[in-house]
Amino acid sequence: MFSIARTATRVARSQPVRSWSRFASSISDTPAEGDLEEGEVDPIKQYNDPNLSGTPSPWAVFDAWGAGDQIEARLSDEEMKILDKEAVAIPFASDPSTLISADVSETEILETYDKLLKRRSSVHFGYPYNLMYDHSELHPFMKYSINNLGDPFVTSNYGVHSRQFEVAVIDFFANLWKIDKSDYWGYVTTCGTEGNLHGILLARECHPDGILYSSRETHYSIFKAARYYRMDAKSIGTLPMGEIDYDALEKELSKNLDRPAIINVNIGTTVKGAVDDLDRILRILKSLGFTRDRFHIHCDGALFAMMMPFIEYAPEVNFEKPIDSIAVSGHKMLGCPMPCGIALTRKSHVKKVEQKIEYLNSVDTTIMGSRNGQAALYLWYSLRKKGVEGIKEDVTHCLETAAYLRDTLTSGGITCRLNDLSSTVCLERPVDEGFIKRWQLACEDDIAHVVVMPNVTREKIDVFVKEFQDVIKEQGRILPTDKASPLSKLMSSSWGGADIAPVRDLKAE
Amino acid sequence: MFSIARTATRVARSQPVRSWSRFASSISDTPAEGDLEEGEVDPIKQYNDPNLSGTPSPWAVFDAWGAGDQIEARLSDEEMKILDKEAVAIPFASDPSTLISADVSETEILETYDKLLKRRSSVHFGYPYNLMYDHSELHPFMKYSINNLGDPFVTSNYGVHSRQFEVAVIDFFANLWKIDKSDYWGYVTTCGTEGNLHGILLARECHPDGILYSSRETHYSIFKAARYYRMDAKSIGTLPMGEIDYDALEKELSKNLDRPAIINVNIGTTVKGAVDDLDRILRILKSLGFTRDRFHIHCDGALFAMMMPFIEYAPEVNFEKPIDSIAVSGHKMLGCPMPCGIALTRKSHVKKVEQKIEYLNSVDTTIMGSRNGQAALYLWYSLRKKGVEGIKEDVTHCLETAAYLRDTLTSGGITCRLNDLSSTVCLERPVDEGFIKRWQLACEDDIAHVVVMPNVTREKIDVFVKEFQDVIKEQGRILPTDKASPLSKLMSSSWGGADIAPVRDLKAE
Repeated sequence: MFSIARTATRVARSQPVRSWSRFASSISDTPAEGDLEEGEVDPIKQYNDPNLSGTPSPWAVFDAWGAGDQIEARLSDEEMKILDKEAVAIPFASDPSTLISADVSETEILETYDKLLKRRSSVHFGYPYNLMYDHSELHPFMKYSINNLGDPFVTSNYGVHSRQFEVAVIDFFANLWKIDKSDYWGYVTTCGTEGNLHGILLARECHPDGILYSSRETHYSIFKAARYYRMDAKSIGTLPMGEIDYDALEKELSKNLDRPAIINVNIGTTVKGAVDDLDRILRILKSLGFTRDRFHIHCDGALFAMMMPFIEYAPEVNFEKPIDSIAVSGHKMLGCPMPCGIALTRKSHVKKVEQKIEYLNSVDTTIMGSRNGQAALYLWYSLRKKGVEGIKEDVTHCLETAAYLRDTLTSGGITCRLNDLSSTVCLERPVDEGFIKRWQLACEDDIAHVVVMPNVTREKIDVFVKEFQDVIKEQGRILPTDKASPLSKLMSSSWGGADIAPVRDLKAE
Repeated sequence: MFSIARTATRVARSQPVRSWSRFASSISDTPAEGDLEEGEVDPIKQYNDPNLSGTPSPWAVFDAWGAGDQIEARLSDEEMKILDKEAVAIPFASDPSTLISADVSETEILETYDKLLKRRSSVHFGYPYNLMYDHSELHPFMKYSINNLGDPFVTSNYGVHSRQFEVAVIDFFANLWKIDKSDYWGYVTTCGTEGNLHGILLARECHPDGILYSSRETHYSIFKAARYYRMDAKSIGTLPMGEIDYDALEKELSKNLDRPAIINVNIGTTVKGAVDDLDRILRILKSLGFTRDRFHIHCDGALFAMMMPFIEYAPEVNFEKPIDSIAVSGHKMLGCPMPCGIALTRKSHVKKVEQKIEYLNSVDTTIMGSRNGQAALYLWYSLRKKGVEGIKEDVTHCLETAAYLRDTLTSGGITCRLNDLSSTVCLERPVDEGFIKRWQLACEDDIAHVVVMPNVTREKIDVFVKEFQDVIKEQGRILPTDKASPLSKLMSSSWGGADIAPVRDLKAE
């Protein structure tokens, strides 16, 4: 019953052009059971352009879903009518005319809805969600009410839980972020925001009179936490590429030496994918005389905290450094049918919020109390199936495909930038709102971005860039809204870091 | 394509012994398509004892899952080993011995896990979760990353959402709790706690210097909110049956007439299922001179806010009265594979927290930001399929089966109580921890409780009571831990409300 070998076909299948991962050397040369014979066609290799050096994880590409190579057709007006407000309304007894029969059956609504989601998943470019996964083996578990009530490590009396899977997931991240098993505590959250709310809450409980510092380009959930928790917070300016303005941070810290510093470090900002330099921030704290007991660092790792450990040249962000918590999303890099995430912190911190709840026969340490046990199961399945090697391939795909997108946009005459360590390509905002909606681009002022995830392929990029060029030809292009606007920064050489200059600059217009 | 009639077989199928619902009169006499012919056997009627007056909703009982009539066998030690920590661990690259093969395949782990959840779902008595539902038609949607990013009513650029279903669900609850469509705002939350965190947050934003009052037997998330939000809070004593001590509340309010009152009203306490008397609380506020702009009422409706509108004799809790928000869980009365809930409030309140997030092209009004779109779809499906009539049948089943449990326990010599309006039977805590774990009972001090949900049947109750009696015979029974303990109150005639006195009283021991 035991000792059933995992299918190891993924190992040694691809031939990485660059060795991105610090784990790679020990893995990629190992021949393994299931290897392809000489001359046999590898279905994975055909998935994308054969010249593509990074491929999505072999496991992921077996899944076609809606997020594969095909761009699905749009729904007709007739079909969209089946999903409108009136059709999906829930009949209410007090209105006898709608009591017995609804106009459209649930089955018909759901069939049409499936088509709509398939279409929309196939043309999604804007948000950092990996839409490509195959968890069909888990679908039958949707018949159970899986609730990891209370704490992951203290089993409640409610038996229908997935704690063993949740703990396996947290253990994996403890390994990834180098924190000793005896020293950490964590849980599977309902989304990245919950991880941030938890991290900042612990910070406040450790330093009740601390001031929160974070950059202006931080995810909105960080300053929301400060508002919820009635904390003093400082929004620090940013450098053109989106990193925190280190000098401004230092200046602000130096004004408040008498109060503990709570710093949120962005491991990838939301819009530009800029990674704040943790080491530099630590140096600033040291130079100002903040001892370890006087500062607290939360890392908002939304997307990149899951990618960076797999990038060979990336700086290290982990618990070997004096940080206190990391939050990451599970539905971003790994992909998951519902939002979820991981919060990891030092065990001593969580004791400050822990409350014994006798009713649960567990302790209340999380924000939510009742917790989605399905999400833990999905994360576990992704990690077990992909393994370190599979994730590395996904990360490699994202970085290389992002570079392809930047190059294709640039040679197509479209202004764009790609930050170091990032798979987020910032570009001039298209003037056609229909185009933005169709590709579901996220916009801020006069720029937009594409986050290249495992479901974004070169074929789709070619279609996207061609359509964007058509928009420019027919409707023109946006001008910077002002000299300090994101697009102005995008066009400026002060952005730094990118090895390809954007096509336009202000003087040429 | 349109005008496909819903299958209306549920209507007029059952012959309610009591007319619980205020909706019942207009429904139960209406003959409908799909009615059974004279003499035909109704499969629903055979599901439970033919004498059972309340039945689970016909829709629900088509589902056998693990939560049906059968009590599933326990797993062997060999099987449990497949689910232990070592077996489900996720191999990590830095440990080469576990890199290529894991000991047990994912498929084998999942098959065993399925068996475990089936067993546990079949003997679950302790938590207010309806484990009986059939959403298999929705399982295919787990291939999509459904995220209702931002606000339910302001569509984000991310296209893979289920907002149309979420809005239909909220509309339903707006109808149920009688708030005008132009006047309400709400959303599908990740659990009951999120609804409470949201309700108390709005209260604080409306009354920054308000004091939060709530009873000692309130769910832990309410005082947690006060801690998170740095609010002053008063924990008010309770009457023996679990309702707030109205006189103590009045006294505490009268001490703080200069500060706004934020009151959490329990629509069913966690342990005893006691419903605070909203009307009496409103009278107290009025008598003390609190005008409408000086108080704010949140109703924690966890389980019962979904049941009370279907109980004919229950007092009304809805927005026609001067209340400000209601939170209810979706995985409780309706049942859902993951925790979820509904938060409903007045539109003007939510404006106080609303922030435009350009990146989302939506507004940030919820706690989480990224939101589980699957949950909205599941709630929609339950409500559409059950309808008002189906929920009423579920509620009737719960209340009548709870009375059956109370009576069977009482005639079996076991001390217990059942509050008015409630399906939660409080009982003396069994002394055998194995028995508590097996039935997954929630305990507090010297009492335990069973929450009778649609998946709790008379057959299972008979097994449960028999086993409990065996425990008493073999291991004895618990004595009250002290004179003020929950069990002492349970045995005391001051509990009130119950029409059957408990078996034991202190003097008889």
